[in-house]
Amino acid sequence: MSLVIVGSVAFDTIETPRVRKERIIGGSCTFGALAASYFVRPGIVAVVGEDFPRETIDFLRKRRIDLRGLKIVPGGKTFHWQGRYGEDPNERTTICTDLNCFRDFRPEIPEAYRAADILLLANIGPDLQEIVLRQVRKPKLTAMDTIVLWIKTELEALLRVLKKVDIFFANDEEIRMITGERNLIAAAQRILKLGPKILVLKKGEHGVLVFGPGLQFGMAAYPTEAVVDPTGAGDAFAGGFLGYLDKVGRITPAEIRRAAVYGSVMASLTIEDFGIGRYMTLTGRDVRARYAAFKRLAAF
Amino acid sequence: MSLVIVGSVAFDTIETPRVRKERIIGGSCTFGALAASYFVRPGIVAVVGEDFPRETIDFLRKRRIDLRGLKIVPGGKTFHWQGRYGEDPNERTTICTDLNCFRDFRPEIPEAYRAADILLLANIGPDLQEIVLRQVRKPKLTAMDTIVLWIKTELEALLRVLKKVDIFFANDEEIRMITGERNLIAAAQRILKLGPKILVLKKGEHGVLVFGPGLQFGMAAYPTEAVVDPTGAGDAFAGGFLGYLDKVGRITPAEIRRAAVYGSVMASLTIEDFGIGRYMTLTGRDVRARYAAFKRLAAF
Repeated sequence: MSLVIVGSVAFDTIETPRVRKERIIGGSCTFGALAASYFVRPGIVAVVGEDFPRETIDFLRKRRIDLRGLKIVPGGKTFHWQGRYGEDPNERTTICTDLNCFRDFRPEIPEAYRAADILLLANIGPDLQEIVLRQVRKPKLTAMDTIVLWIKTELEALLRVLKKVDIFFANDEEIRMITGERNLIAAAQRILKLGPKILVLKKGEHGVLVFGPGLQFGMAAYPTEAVVDPTGAGDAFAGGFLGYLDKVGRITPAEIRRAAVYGSVMASLTIEDFGIGRYMTLTGRDVRARYAAFKRLAAF
Repeated sequence: MSLVIVGSVAFDTIETPRVRKERIIGGSCTFGALAASYFVRPGIVAVVGEDFPRETIDFLRKRRIDLRGLKIVPGGKTFHWQGRYGEDPNERTTICTDLNCFRDFRPEIPEAYRAADILLLANIGPDLQEIVLRQVRKPKLTAMDTIVLWIKTELEALLRVLKKVDIFFANDEEIRMITGERNLIAAAQRILKLGPKILVLKKGEHGVLVFGPGLQFGMAAYPTEAVVDPTGAGDAFAGGFLGYLDKVGRITPAEIRRAAVYGSVMASLTIEDFGIGRYMTLTGRDVRARYAAFKRLAAF
């Protein structure tokens, strides 16, 4: 066990301009762990209610995800997020959020996880991220993700966590909002002064930029018309990125570049179906083929 | 003589949030030819009035640009564009356009240019682009650029030219407007059905995508805080792209990828100063250094 992912395991109700999907499986931890599972055997820390489907738990176990940190609250109901995407898949509106058993969730890292090498604080409230950060021993690498909601409502806690992590996964809007800088590159430089050594800037259809000491990496997104459901793309990116780093066991600039490509690979695959649908059939061969496609795309 | 560029040579008055520059040198042909001049000796076809500065003409000549197709209208006034950029440099508003001697411009390709290998129809009205296209003999490669104005006002003529060219340089907004497709990749595929073999999609700060037969290439933009004036970036891109292809003399997928990088190189340099200011000191060594920076940026 070396990569631990803390975040949400959830039901999502998703509306796209043409389709509505009711209570499908989602959650930042779910997507992150599934993506990472193509590289290593991640452990997860999350909470669900008794209404969470047995077959999904079985599926996660089949993907060799360590579920010792998954708490099932007897009689509880699973966190439920409902959102709508516009014609532009980058436009997302949250319709409602039922915290349910997440309301009283106080993440506890199982003893077996506490020596984790890599810790991903996937999107959950920064107060919870902070609690987790205190429980791990000496991880080689810590990373966090977030969403606009926390920047608006819990900026102070978020900045405290940001100060302590090595990698920050964020998108354009988030880093502009945190720094107040309109210019993306200036905003990125400001983020690096707030704590993290590395900023992974996920720009959706516009690809990814990575900033760090002696490191600038940029790559286009995979050009595809087949964006079915963008939910979880960012989480899968983080899972693929850290899963790959955990697998190779070296955190060098060259490996971070490759990690960013594997992150893009997992994100580009995730959005090809609703929720975690793509993972039902996704093989290691598919992952390698998509990596090769990125190689061809970027070669000059 | 092998690359011929037809377009505007102009005065630009430019307002950015902090600076206003009155009647500096601009024009699609000017930027295209200057960028191309770092690779080959392009010939230009354009018109100016008697008010156009002698020293600029001397400067273009010093850059070894062939000016036999530059018409100076006695007593005429040079085309003048006035525009304003917002905090977001992608937001550009045209304040006014004085066509002046451009109003009666009927481009004439000098006899010496008619056997050109590569023809760039830089941004001018599609009716003028069409006139030019009829005058060249058998170019190996023809390319066009345009702006939203012509899509709104002269779409029919624009589609006629598009049908006849090999390469279309365009941005997101333009291809979405032409095709009515919101998804960028779907829009790109639709453009390829309208005539051009290759679409070069310039996405500004988000880099470039190239689509063609057996060819998909994507690259991030050069990450810089130093965007002084975005004017001419697209024209310089086209000039660098075609100048490089003219220099190597091979139009293969591998060279088209490199051409797209050289286009990005010239665009990224152009925006570092107002108007053509950057070209006053720009050396071939600077161009090669920026290409090397793109190599480092994209490597994985």
